[in-house]
Amino acid sequence: MSAPLRVALLGCGTVGSAVLRLLGEQADDLAARIGRPVEVAGVAVRRPDRHPDVPAHLLTTDAHALVTRPDVDLVVEVIGGIEPVRTLLLAAVEAGKSVVSANKALLADDGVELHAAAAKAGVDLYYEAAVAGAIPLLRPLRESLAGDQLRRVVGIVNGTTNYILSRMAETGHGFTEALAEATELGYAEADPTADVDGFDAAAKAAILASLAFHTPVTAADVYREGISAVTATDVARAGEIGCTVKLLAICERVPGDGSGEGDSVAVRVHPAMIPTTHPLAAVGGAFNAVFVEAEAAGQLMFYGQGAGGDATASAVLGDLVAVARNRVAGVAGPGVTTYAGLPARPIAETPTRYHVSLDVADKPGVLATVAAEFARHGVSIATVRQDGHGDAATLVIVTHSAPDAALSATVRALREMPAVRGVTSILRVEGLS
Amino acid sequence: MSAPLRVALLGCGTVGSAVLRLLGEQADDLAARIGRPVEVAGVAVRRPDRHPDVPAHLLTTDAHALVTRPDVDLVVEVIGGIEPVRTLLLAAVEAGKSVVSANKALLADDGVELHAAAAKAGVDLYYEAAVAGAIPLLRPLRESLAGDQLRRVVGIVNGTTNYILSRMAETGHGFTEALAEATELGYAEADPTADVDGFDAAAKAAILASLAFHTPVTAADVYREGISAVTATDVARAGEIGCTVKLLAICERVPGDGSGEGDSVAVRVHPAMIPTTHPLAAVGGAFNAVFVEAEAAGQLMFYGQGAGGDATASAVLGDLVAVARNRVAGVAGPGVTTYAGLPARPIAETPTRYHVSLDVADKPGVLATVAAEFARHGVSIATVRQDGHGDAATLVIVTHSAPDAALSATVRALREMPAVRGVTSILRVEGLS
Repeated sequence: MSAPLRVALLGCGTVGSAVLRLLGEQADDLAARIGRPVEVAGVAVRRPDRHPDVPAHLLTTDAHALVTRPDVDLVVEVIGGIEPVRTLLLAAVEAGKSVVSANKALLADDGVELHAAAAKAGVDLYYEAAVAGAIPLLRPLRESLAGDQLRRVVGIVNGTTNYILSRMAETGHGFTEALAEATELGYAEADPTADVDGFDAAAKAAILASLAFHTPVTAADVYREGISAVTATDVARAGEIGCTVKLLAICERVPGDGSGEGDSVAVRVHPAMIPTTHPLAAVGGAFNAVFVEAEAAGQLMFYGQGAGGDATASAVLGDLVAVARNRVAGVAGPGVTTYAGLPARPIAETPTRYHVSLDVADKPGVLATVAAEFARHGVSIATVRQDGHGDAATLVIVTHSAPDAALSATVRALREMPAVRGVTSILRVEGLS
Repeated sequence: MSAPLRVALLGCGTVGSAVLRLLGEQADDLAARIGRPVEVAGVAVRRPDRHPDVPAHLLTTDAHALVTRPDVDLVVEVIGGIEPVRTLLLAAVEAGKSVVSANKALLADDGVELHAAAAKAGVDLYYEAAVAGAIPLLRPLRESLAGDQLRRVVGIVNGTTNYILSRMAETGHGFTEALAEATELGYAEADPTADVDGFDAAAKAAILASLAFHTPVTAADVYREGISAVTATDVARAGEIGCTVKLLAICERVPGDGSGEGDSVAVRVHPAMIPTTHPLAAVGGAFNAVFVEAEAAGQLMFYGQGAGGDATASAVLGDLVAVARNRVAGVAGPGVTTYAGLPARPIAETPTRYHVSLDVADKPGVLATVAAEFARHGVSIATVRQDGHGDAATLVIVTHSAPDAALSATVRALREMPAVRGVTSILRVEGLS
């Protein structure tokens, strides 16, 4: 066995520490699987004094010097965020290092540029850990399904929001209380914005859509709604129609209409009601799952831990073995293709379905008036349930699929109708047949 | 874009026809993803007159000549069975062709030899379609989880038996009636032996265990019990204890006992009761699912269609894209490592858990006598339920984990006890905490 492959580790938080520990514990196995031993060349951190467990001679604050050092073969990045990481990884790639990253925000924003730089330098850029933690998902999309046509990728890819929504369903609590509980238990960060407002899921959706549809998709192309507006009423209404509320990342290929308009890609993150019989409905707590529909393969589901130091480190090390094997063979693995270049479809033109609950006056003709409003916007109603109580009634309506703009215009119009006392719950619905 | 890559297709049944059709339909996408177009060089079949849809100039009965033709780059084999396929694929590999196969029986028996030949020739050997149809599973095991330590792989990998067991649970019918129904509906073949006796699942288990544990495992190393002895009573008893009966393929790494004995690999296929809350319990009909437990990644599940022409063709084409990209890059992908060389653990020494239902005389002391018999064999009891009816009683016992030999010896002894009127159901139990 020849000289070791030397790895620069950028960042040493929860995931970085797990990577470092596993590199040690599994050194023999990794060497056997790669064909050469792997050695840590250095660990770049901001505050070396905070890492007493890392041998002092490995620690450095100069990440740029580390990633361009001639004795470094591979770079593992688990810092997160856009800068300075973007600059560091471009420097690493230009210096001929293959890169493994867990950085969803960076890949979602600058994936095209980074892939182009890696291709030009003939090195690898892998980032399985960036989406759905330990679940093998990006490699299956990039490789296993490369002979198929993907139609949809629908996932629960954020554990914090899934925990909060699961607790709301279990306790009947509102969003604020459930968030407070999640924060107390460490499932939500002190500043939960990235999770609860859907930024984290949107970055992951952009990455999934890029790979699924061979098209460059950035976070800016993703329609995004978080869960902070989800109410206890929404969750209760979902239960009444046999559904549960989940924050979904949805990547769809929308076929052209045949009038010259070609296919487009609609990518969105928002809370939605899904039937409790849907495989994603049972994904509880901090777990992640991703449902894939492909032309030939049919329906597939991938399930596992979406976060956590060891789980994420497993994905990082899987990529590390892949890029190390390529390095030993003197090659780069297959890159990412974006040849399809499909346009992003705005949410307004994306077909969705709505659930709408209304408080109305319980008198003859109200349902007819409401139904006429849906019809006026070209929205077809799938089911209506009317429950009278005193002089008031609740109307629970689930629509068929229609352009999202038509649905939101309908809801705006309903709010203005004299017969409608209040719109008590609006959520999109997914996965109904 | 340069000259086309030329593919020889061996076999043109359900899967082969789907491969051929998709190669045509998706030609542009495949070319863009691979970097070169893919062209069919020839299709080897036994009876050319039975393939009117295939252009006549492509058909040949001389598979050996086809796979060694200088204008062929890649070979796709969907014939199945050991010979003549083994000889054909060795000839193809020696002639420098990369091979994609869907052949579980061959890979389970002769995988080591074929991999060695491929490594020697510097070509690829991929066979995602051999296990669990369209589900990306072998590539995740070979690559995504290559930085982790696998503990267990447990799967429902045979659709026919899963359909039969699902129908037995739904209808209360016995095995014979459910098999007849499956045959009538086309879910079981005219000769169902390979499926119902577990040979198909055992071959897949051998392949999964080889990849999961970096150890050569052949079908002969797999303990195998089919489902023909599963009775309506077994299925009913399972329901009574909150379980369902599934045919499981189980691959486990059993840790050494610390007394110098090292780790070993236990691979087995048998029907088992699993809790209805287990993710595998909900896998119905002809679907497949595989549950993976890894040291760092934790629990993962992969779910999808296990059979069918198009689904299997999706896996074949994914492999075809991978080997074609490697061919374009002038490299071979990472091979399979078998460095661990762990010994196969016999079923007798493999820890399992049993469910046992007994008809006994309803008189004092019977339970004590029965419990003593378990204790005498070193088997600890987890739960007992006793239901009296008249002068008889039913004892339903679930054991803790013990070596399988101790459990089967206990059952043999129970059959001889005067107090035991009959053993009405015995099945192993998996997935209980």
